[in-house]
Amino acid sequence: MAETEPRTTDSVTMDKIVSLCRRRGFVFPSSEIYGGLGSAYDYGHYGVLAKNNVKARWLEAMVQERDDIVALDSSIILNPSVWEASGHLEGFSDPLVDCRTCKLRFRADKLEDAQCGRKPSKHPGETKDCDLTEPRQFNLMLSTKLGAVEDTGSTAYLRPETAQGIFVNFKNVLQLARRKPPFGIAQVGKSFRNEITPGNFLFRTREFEQMEMEYFVPPDEADEWYRYWIDQRFNWYTRYGLRENHLRVRPHDPDELSHYSSATSDIEYLFPIGWSELEGIANRGDFGLTQHTNHSATKLEYVDSATGERYTPHVIEPAGGADRALLAFLVDAYDEEIVADRQRTVLRLHPQIAPVKAAVLPLIGRHEQMVATARALYEELRRRHAVEYDDSGAIGRRYRRQDEIGTPFAFTIDEQTLEDDTVTIRDRDSLAQERLPLSSVAGYLDEALERPWKTPKPD
Amino acid sequence: MAETEPRTTDSVTMDKIVSLCRRRGFVFPSSEIYGGLGSAYDYGHYGVLAKNNVKARWLEAMVQERDDIVALDSSIILNPSVWEASGHLEGFSDPLVDCRTCKLRFRADKLEDAQCGRKPSKHPGETKDCDLTEPRQFNLMLSTKLGAVEDTGSTAYLRPETAQGIFVNFKNVLQLARRKPPFGIAQVGKSFRNEITPGNFLFRTREFEQMEMEYFVPPDEADEWYRYWIDQRFNWYTRYGLRENHLRVRPHDPDELSHYSSATSDIEYLFPIGWSELEGIANRGDFGLTQHTNHSATKLEYVDSATGERYTPHVIEPAGGADRALLAFLVDAYDEEIVADRQRTVLRLHPQIAPVKAAVLPLIGRHEQMVATARALYEELRRRHAVEYDDSGAIGRRYRRQDEIGTPFAFTIDEQTLEDDTVTIRDRDSLAQERLPLSSVAGYLDEALERPWKTPKPD
Repeated sequence: MAETEPRTTDSVTMDKIVSLCRRRGFVFPSSEIYGGLGSAYDYGHYGVLAKNNVKARWLEAMVQERDDIVALDSSIILNPSVWEASGHLEGFSDPLVDCRTCKLRFRADKLEDAQCGRKPSKHPGETKDCDLTEPRQFNLMLSTKLGAVEDTGSTAYLRPETAQGIFVNFKNVLQLARRKPPFGIAQVGKSFRNEITPGNFLFRTREFEQMEMEYFVPPDEADEWYRYWIDQRFNWYTRYGLRENHLRVRPHDPDELSHYSSATSDIEYLFPIGWSELEGIANRGDFGLTQHTNHSATKLEYVDSATGERYTPHVIEPAGGADRALLAFLVDAYDEEIVADRQRTVLRLHPQIAPVKAAVLPLIGRHEQMVATARALYEELRRRHAVEYDDSGAIGRRYRRQDEIGTPFAFTIDEQTLEDDTVTIRDRDSLAQERLPLSSVAGYLDEALERPWKTPKPD
Repeated sequence: MAETEPRTTDSVTMDKIVSLCRRRGFVFPSSEIYGGLGSAYDYGHYGVLAKNNVKARWLEAMVQERDDIVALDSSIILNPSVWEASGHLEGFSDPLVDCRTCKLRFRADKLEDAQCGRKPSKHPGETKDCDLTEPRQFNLMLSTKLGAVEDTGSTAYLRPETAQGIFVNFKNVLQLARRKPPFGIAQVGKSFRNEITPGNFLFRTREFEQMEMEYFVPPDEADEWYRYWIDQRFNWYTRYGLRENHLRVRPHDPDELSHYSSATSDIEYLFPIGWSELEGIANRGDFGLTQHTNHSATKLEYVDSATGERYTPHVIEPAGGADRALLAFLVDAYDEEIVADRQRTVLRLHPQIAPVKAAVLPLIGRHEQMVATARALYEELRRRHAVEYDDSGAIGRRYRRQDEIGTPFAFTIDEQTLEDDTVTIRDRDSLAQERLPLSSVAGYLDEALERPWKTPKPD
């Protein structure tokens, strides 16, 4: 979905993000010592912490802060009948063509994105160089065999979306959660798609983590809830720091819609590769529940025990990706500026997304008393928050390191601390420094992390 | 590893746990409307919250509370060379035999556990009825195909353990985390094994979630750290509520040891199926790093930049399962007692493991003022904690519902609240009730959740 429109608001490029992620241990190419595995990534320490924060904020907004949504975690490998009913076995495929000239394969519907292997230039306008076969369908689900011995094992699939695990649990949840529509079921978990063109770092990978919620509503309320969830999800991204002018809502054209969807909108973010899908919000109608009703022995519908009214709820689905969301947060937070004649790279991450909340630093790393005081503060703070202690090298270097991983606060223990029990708080974004009593640092941090926050970057 | 020794300390059975989990929406059989998928489970709302707590407590203990361990999240599908180097492609297999009489397959090394399909009785002593083939090796890794079209796709594997994803990232972490041995890398994530005999609810499933940490140490310190980690991990389970007399450490016999391990101990828990492995702590020596050094172009060793000393660290691995740990916490917390002539079922979970921390209940669900006061308290508490609001039906029934999901505290708003702004706190375990000012409830809950906790159940 990427357009070629350049990112003009600032100088961040995908290369800079990849480089920072590698340099600071957010993200490594997977299996790197074996030459990698195309477009697969392993999360390092800060990447794990930041991505866990993204998922936790999503679950908070979806489940903890609401009365009408419950959590679910279904298996990655479901009964294969699920994918027959959902239509994925038959229909979840891309049309592929072979180029007889360069011997590469391309998506027939995305030829404009394809690079010819022989002439490494854009295909459009060069079809004279290409000798393409007829398209054939290629299912995107990864399959495996379960069972005692391979030759008799039954074929099963790694889920290509978490949504179907929600639909097949609809009745369980309806009964147990004592809910009636509108209500939702939220799930975070890995999905797998055998993409022919993965790429752009974390943007599209074969193994990825989804954050999906299926919201079941009375059919005549579907339009209203569809608009509601577009707003809610848009606001979630701005709440955690994405700038509004880097976000837009793009309704799908009729010919883009899945056959089961009457309306879908993408929330797009201005990635360095151009405006691209961050999350899709789909009005899925009653397709999922009806298909599973027809393929199983279970009627997936809502029956009002008081009125006897019965209907198959319609479904509004906000479906985002944890990896992609993290990438957007990193891109939007990335900043370079000149401070005192030196370039500073800083991730202006929302404190609730930042992997480390505070650094505790003795000004002089070999000063016994400073170290002891700093260690004591560190021990206190880390009972509740992810914080770091660092006594290595010059203080300026330690600050810059924390800036690059997006740590919003640094507490520095210096000579004055030993005299009057105050510490310096350094603010990552403004670089302002002020002094605070040592005893109030923990409370200050608790409060600072709960305050609403707005990026200091210009729109 | 299960023994047949009966559980005599109390009346909990696996059936009771399965039933409670189903009844209260902790765990459902996966793909149930399609007849399930042998030994696969989906987590419902409370199961997700509780299991997330188990994983969060593990990460806290491993990473947040320590200076020497960093987090990692590697891919489930790694470069296949990883499994060649690790020995899993060749050696991660079970010997299987076919019975020509009943046509079933069994593990050759576990024939005493096998049930003959023709004569549903134990095999031992009946080998005259059985006509077994020679054993053949069956690899436990699930395989799949990656790539553009199936016939040319390359075979890849779903990881059977997270450990190898850690070993292949050893050098990345060593460089970036600025650590020297002893230091560790911790990872939580799904693994897959094509078990021929999954079973006992969450105890053994083909898809499961591991919590593994590889601790890299100077070779001559390996024994010492091995004992250290057995203690640490034992204490983690008791810290979160397991009773010490339901836990034991069982060193492996020499003939049980993996070929790479010089010593392994299981922390066993007294499950209803008998003493069974909860977690294994292995001294893996330098096998993993050496194998990957030999199979890749990268030397995985530690070089001390000051002294020039270089060596391949040895590895101590505490490897637990999130599903299995949750099962143990549920089993140990399960209690039935007679209160006022009625049976009460209660999960005496550690407050940090409990899925819901507090319930806010207006005594009379239709009393406008009680409801408004209760809702306001609920809104305040859920900003920081997973709490529930419930105004349905009789208060006794609401308490029992919270008991069954293990909610440690209930705050009830009643007539007196409207007069003097105090609420009733009900303690799940003692059933004691006391009154507290409404304004101090949030602080009370914050503190109560951070206090050390010990199960009130007798040893």
